[in-house]
Amino acid sequence: MASTSPSSLSPPEVPMELHISNRQKLLNCLRQHLSESSRPLHCFVLLQGGEEQTRYCTDHIELFRQESYFAYLFGVREPGFYGAIDIATGKSILFAPRLPADYAIWLGEIKPLSYFQERYKVSMVYYTDEIAQVLVDHYKGSGKPLLFLLHGLNTDSNNFSKPANFEGIENFETDLTTLHPVLTECRVLKSDSELALIQFANDISSEAHVEVMRKAKAGMKEYQLESMFLHHTYMYGGCRHCSYTCICATGENSAVLHYGHAAAPNDRILEDGDMALFDMGAEYSFYGSDITCSFPVNGKFTSDQSLIYNAVLDAHNAVITTMKPGVSWVDMHKLAEKIILESLKKGNLLVGNVDDMMVERVGAIFMPHGLGHLLGIDTHDPGGYPKGVERPKEPGLKSLRTARQLQEGMLVTANGSKNMTKVPRKTWEIEAVMAGGPWPFS
Amino acid sequence: MASTSPSSLSPPEVPMELHISNRQKLLNCLRQHLSESSRPLHCFVLLQGGEEQTRYCTDHIELFRQESYFAYLFGVREPGFYGAIDIATGKSILFAPRLPADYAIWLGEIKPLSYFQERYKVSMVYYTDEIAQVLVDHYKGSGKPLLFLLHGLNTDSNNFSKPANFEGIENFETDLTTLHPVLTECRVLKSDSELALIQFANDISSEAHVEVMRKAKAGMKEYQLESMFLHHTYMYGGCRHCSYTCICATGENSAVLHYGHAAAPNDRILEDGDMALFDMGAEYSFYGSDITCSFPVNGKFTSDQSLIYNAVLDAHNAVITTMKPGVSWVDMHKLAEKIILESLKKGNLLVGNVDDMMVERVGAIFMPHGLGHLLGIDTHDPGGYPKGVERPKEPGLKSLRTARQLQEGMLVTANGSKNMTKVPRKTWEIEAVMAGGPWPFS
Repeated sequence: MASTSPSSLSPPEVPMELHISNRQKLLNCLRQHLSESSRPLHCFVLLQGGEEQTRYCTDHIELFRQESYFAYLFGVREPGFYGAIDIATGKSILFAPRLPADYAIWLGEIKPLSYFQERYKVSMVYYTDEIAQVLVDHYKGSGKPLLFLLHGLNTDSNNFSKPANFEGIENFETDLTTLHPVLTECRVLKSDSELALIQFANDISSEAHVEVMRKAKAGMKEYQLESMFLHHTYMYGGCRHCSYTCICATGENSAVLHYGHAAAPNDRILEDGDMALFDMGAEYSFYGSDITCSFPVNGKFTSDQSLIYNAVLDAHNAVITTMKPGVSWVDMHKLAEKIILESLKKGNLLVGNVDDMMVERVGAIFMPHGLGHLLGIDTHDPGGYPKGVERPKEPGLKSLRTARQLQEGMLVTANGSKNMTKVPRKTWEIEAVMAGGPWPFS
Repeated sequence: MASTSPSSLSPPEVPMELHISNRQKLLNCLRQHLSESSRPLHCFVLLQGGEEQTRYCTDHIELFRQESYFAYLFGVREPGFYGAIDIATGKSILFAPRLPADYAIWLGEIKPLSYFQERYKVSMVYYTDEIAQVLVDHYKGSGKPLLFLLHGLNTDSNNFSKPANFEGIENFETDLTTLHPVLTECRVLKSDSELALIQFANDISSEAHVEVMRKAKAGMKEYQLESMFLHHTYMYGGCRHCSYTCICATGENSAVLHYGHAAAPNDRILEDGDMALFDMGAEYSFYGSDITCSFPVNGKFTSDQSLIYNAVLDAHNAVITTMKPGVSWVDMHKLAEKIILESLKKGNLLVGNVDDMMVERVGAIFMPHGLGHLLGIDTHDPGGYPKGVERPKEPGLKSLRTARQLQEGMLVTANGSKNMTKVPRKTWEIEAVMAGGPWPFS
């Protein structure tokens, strides 16, 4: 291996102020929401963080990844925490698990509460067995203290988030409806600090994609390229998690949208003449990326491959050029579809009137999934269908993960959009990079 | 990178006969068990395989890993299966989930039942919604058909395995006590085919450990060495899973037995003068490895480091030399402890009579964990405390994962033992390999 690092990147410091801002944003939104309905501010937001899970009946512990709403507000990497925000005062409280003495032998130093207070920059830290008492002590209103708990539908999974539970909760009033839509809406619009982490996840993933492109060749197994991607993003980017299981599809597998899972585990051998479709994204400090690159395994596009590839690239570029605040995402899906249909017609793969095809939803045959999605702490970040936004029913469109109008902060700028991904896209760029040319072009 | 592969290995074919043998072994044991108590053989074993899990409320799917007992009997990599064995006839039946048509678009080709029959070499395959009907149809006894379900304690986790459940189970007699101890005992004694997979997992992991040793240097982050290990075992060994989360501990972290988890995530910077303790093992086709290597980050042991290192190495070697069928594992723990105490005394770190220290359990201060464990489809393979074997209560000994007498097949041979791990162990070997010398020595 050459002595120079194959990466120009290194993991950035993560400012905990990011999560302070996230809490402040929630506070502002909740206070406004409560004021508008003349409800008192003497109440708490309470979230329960994720717990470590063992595998089936064994003591094999799965690598823990924090629950996303909890990560958004508190940035806590450890399992077993709770977090509260006093809506009246804005004070934030973390509750840490009280660890048994022999934790120190098996799992490491038992950190004092002050460690968590300093690390996570919250107002106070107590133990989880003190939740009820602490919240009662800090309550300044009358009657039972009111807790806003997180309960609501994830419109991608159709699962509901699990509201916090703790010993003594029966002594509190609980509200299960207010918090979820407000907090979800906070997550939809990204701050500059959040965008910076997403940009880093994109940068290291882009670089890893290029590495994979350069190393791919016939005879390799798909999973070997997954391994290279994982290694590059962890080794040079400090990314221990991916946003999703790597999709390393070649040949026919490229037509399977979520290939790569345990029943189809990236185990095909690459062949000369294959197209590869690699959909892989690293996660950095909870924030993710989601990048797909397509390229010919042997480094040279055939004319058939170019035709299809460019149909998709033209659609991709048209959407990027057109996206801006106020634009309907359903229209972006239709724009992409229309350009693909036009390209296929130009390539003599379709015959007929494209507008008629649009009416008949022919595009859904070639693009059965919805175009894009919100991206953040989850790959499919929540908030695609808030109250009042209906899911379309037509083929293709019904798979859209959002039917909203774009707003600044949904990874869209004030006047347009910024492509955060830095990979070769034009066929000649890909061919040049795969032939050993530099990237980025100097 | 040099054009030669950094690995001399490649993933072996996995013979499905391994799982046929596992089933046959269970059948033999169960039939004998039933005959001894004059119980009829007209009954079925029924196991439920693992299900895919989403992360919290999202649609993020965790990479699926089969439940270990199910993997042992059927070798099925896909989620959502059930498996039955007809104890009278020995026939094996897999039940596959009936997948919706749009699975093909998102997740890949819907395989016909014949695919699973051929791949997993079972007698029959049906759908999971046919379980009740199929079992009734195949039942040759009188009254309600009897099912042996898996229910029992894992003595490492204190969790219970979950018995199979399916629509229509109320039409069957169920037995929750017979299967677990018999099946667990089958897993304890490894067949040659199982040992071959464990050997491969050890081979590729050994090679990766050597790679890590050679690349480690001050200034790196611990997780970068984790990344190298994961990459080597996946890239060249096809190991998508590890047996457990990598423990990449340096400096003080080396004293934390299960370092490396989310709250202590291998994020320290290596320093000149550190000892490193890397406990990492890959899993190949369900079967695992578990290897720890200790070495000085700068490639040269100090005399203090040698003293402690050799105390552990001498204990390790004494146990390997002494272990054989009939030997008590508790005695092996004590042997290791005694040699460590003697070495510490010789090094002037302890004063007094070693036999007295043994009585006072002083060794538990330096070795709070139990020596070793069974290894197989789980890192801590079950069966350490069958009925009649009591867990010791003394410090150190109480952490033993088994107090059994060794039998051939518990990774012990007929006359002694075989060390499946192939890494430099002597201090001069480690220093030579870290200085760029070849491994294995030619």
